[in-house]
Amino acid sequence: MDLKEAIELVKQELKAPRFEHTLRVIETSGVLAKRFKESTEKAKLAAALHDYAKNWPVEDLKTYLVNNHLSNDLLTYHSELWHGPVASHVMENEYGITDSDVLQAIAHHTTGRAGMTNIEKIVYLADYIEPGRDIPGIDEVRAASEQSLDYACWLVARNTLNYLIQKKVTIHPDSFHAYNDLTRTIHTEGLLNGNE
Amino acid sequence: MDLKEAIELVKQELKAPRFEHTLRVIETSGVLAKRFKESTEKAKLAAALHDYAKNWPVEDLKTYLVNNHLSNDLLTYHSELWHGPVASHVMENEYGITDSDVLQAIAHHTTGRAGMTNIEKIVYLADYIEPGRDIPGIDEVRAASEQSLDYACWLVARNTLNYLIQKKVTIHPDSFHAYNDLTRTIHTEGLLNGNE
Repeated sequence: MDLKEAIELVKQELKAPRFEHTLRVIETSGVLAKRFKESTEKAKLAAALHDYAKNWPVEDLKTYLVNNHLSNDLLTYHSELWHGPVASHVMENEYGITDSDVLQAIAHHTTGRAGMTNIEKIVYLADYIEPGRDIPGIDEVRAASEQSLDYACWLVARNTLNYLIQKKVTIHPDSFHAYNDLTRTIHTEGLLNGNE
Repeated sequence: MDLKEAIELVKQELKAPRFEHTLRVIETSGVLAKRFKESTEKAKLAAALHDYAKNWPVEDLKTYLVNNHLSNDLLTYHSELWHGPVASHVMENEYGITDSDVLQAIAHHTTGRAGMTNIEKIVYLADYIEPGRDIPGIDEVRAASEQSLDYACWLVARNTLNYLIQKKVTIHPDSFHAYNDLTRTIHTEGLLNGNE
């Protein structure tokens, strides 16, 4: 599937605001991929497909997860986390996408995970900072994204944990592992500016 | 070992301020155990011993963890987390303590964990709210501890995550699982006062 086909596909699946968000994530992913010397083709394809299942009814997502034996612990967390793994599985099994960078980036764009590839990081970050987003603290993330993919992703992971804790809800282990993994990375890379 | 023997033992091991903290945790654990209808004997004994290894040199803690095959992932987290599991292991293997409530409360008093017993929760909470502590947000935790062991422990777990995230450091999985587990508990028990 090429980018044009992917965009046509998700245009059929998504409500208009979600489709427009997707177009902005594609654009932002392309900019980030170029900036950090990764494949713009992979980044944009993953971005195009990341929300493929976003407008599915919750019951359909649940049925798909159960029928396809996708990580069952997902069902004990918020249904907001279900559409990424479902979309990735659909793309692999019904649309013949084989590139694991693309599939992983679709699967983990909401939670992140430990050991994200750069393509995963780009979609995870682009989904957070695309120009239509207005999230507390987003200016700091956008500024960081000009310099460091890892530090910007750490800010996303940190903000996500803060948001969930403030909402008094559970945190999926992948979100937590993303935070720990990126924390280790930015310490190792000396990206903290003595701010500890 | 009875409470008096435990106090004598840790008095030999701990620097004076840490010993005084221990006496206050014993007192607070006793109050909480009485309030929440748990064994004051178990709670106070665990409290007496919880910081037994707190003043060990970090290298000795590390050696003990390695030699005794204690959960190796601990070594990849902050050394502040090592003294609880070490003390629990020493108490079981060198001082003949067999009560698992007491041993678990000693082991997990710093991080908490998913599925804490009430004795574990009491020592975890008492260590946080004993009268010598001055921690941001502690008044809220002390007030909650008058009413609900679970909600007060949830506040401790939440504050701990916030503190670690603000410090930009990694979070041990047990701290994270304690937060998720207590979050589920307070939702189930309806302890959120419509505050979500």
